[in-house]
Amino acid sequence: MTGTIFLDESVALLERTPRVARELLSGIPDSWLGEPDTVGGWTARDVIGHLISAELDDWIPRAEIIVRDGTSHPFEPFDRFAHVQRDRDVPLGTLLERFAELRGESLSRLRDLVRDDADLDRRGRHPELGEVTLRELLATWAVHDLDHLAQVYASLAASQDTAVGPWKAYLGILLRRDAASAADATSAADASETAGAVETAGAAGPVD
Amino acid sequence: MTGTIFLDESVALLERTPRVARELLSGIPDSWLGEPDTVGGWTARDVIGHLISAELDDWIPRAEIIVRDGTSHPFEPFDRFAHVQRDRDVPLGTLLERFAELRGESLSRLRDLVRDDADLDRRGRHPELGEVTLRELLATWAVHDLDHLAQVYASLAASQDTAVGPWKAYLGILLRRDAASAADATSAADASETAGAVETAGAAGPVD
Repeated sequence: MTGTIFLDESVALLERTPRVARELLSGIPDSWLGEPDTVGGWTARDVIGHLISAELDDWIPRAEIIVRDGTSHPFEPFDRFAHVQRDRDVPLGTLLERFAELRGESLSRLRDLVRDDADLDRRGRHPELGEVTLRELLATWAVHDLDHLAQVYASLAASQDTAVGPWKAYLGILLRRDAASAADATSAADASETAGAVETAGAAGPVD
Repeated sequence: MTGTIFLDESVALLERTPRVARELLSGIPDSWLGEPDTVGGWTARDVIGHLISAELDDWIPRAEIIVRDGTSHPFEPFDRFAHVQRDRDVPLGTLLERFAELRGESLSRLRDLVRDDADLDRRGRHPELGEVTLRELLATWAVHDLDHLAQVYASLAASQDTAVGPWKAYLGILLRRDAASAADATSAADASETAGAVETAGAAGPVD
């Protein structure tokens, strides 16, 4: 146990994510895995790959910058699409194990970096959002997990979009998907002169 | 193994849901559990209670009506708020175990009811949607799981709505929640002459 309840309660969520992802996705038939959450969005494999990227390049590296440099050194930009090339041929089961391993290492390092509430009040500088606290980084890490896991559910549901027949009218997870795809199509059309494939693919996912 | 791939692949998802729910929610600190997914929506406890109700009164009873009566007997209406009174004082851990137990019984019964693809083509009558197949019922059961689990993620995220600070601007799971609450407030105002508390509470969740 540490001196901060907020840290303990955040870790209680963060340590669940790889276990939940494994319970949901490990060994699931491929027929569930083929669709992205919205048109141009992410499949379950993309999401787990992105979570791996965030363990490597986002949360702990940024926490370390806050502790070491405070607001004098802005965070490095984070590549939200690093997984696309890196994980191209990696099986989902391997990605799930890799994510679990990295998350374990991250939480161990977090316990070194944050000892008390005063540590959580330390400030850093986000390149776009300005000053943020380590407490806000930690809350964002957890909500980012929840956001992307919810995205996995939408991708799994998408594979049954027509199979549910007339019940689709009652299933918000499918209706929201259509609404998001329609909105993306509109904004993609507006931006078609300038937006490349990578930016289009990013429309569906949360950024960091 | 049965004769139908669709049944096996649906069961592969359905049997995961209670395990995923337990992995996510069992023993999680109460500070994660206090908010509904949207204003007037459902907390994690509500969702698990509703999933219990659906095991008792929706999926298998409707499958049995299809197999026994075909389209001659419409499904019974399903009370989406049965959990509100029934589970008022039941701890979340007990609800999770109850749901897992009922889901196991449901899947065992499903294996009795569905032996081959011809069984999946059997038709029943939904009181509002008209003719539906057992295959569509099964797909809907799985997507209904995904829809409500995604709702749990939104409720957990809601507890950190202010804690994430300026990062909220990047977190779709929180932004969509605000948008849904704003839309509900508009429609609730429109319907204020006729809608009681129960109907208002239902605005956030998928129906069946």
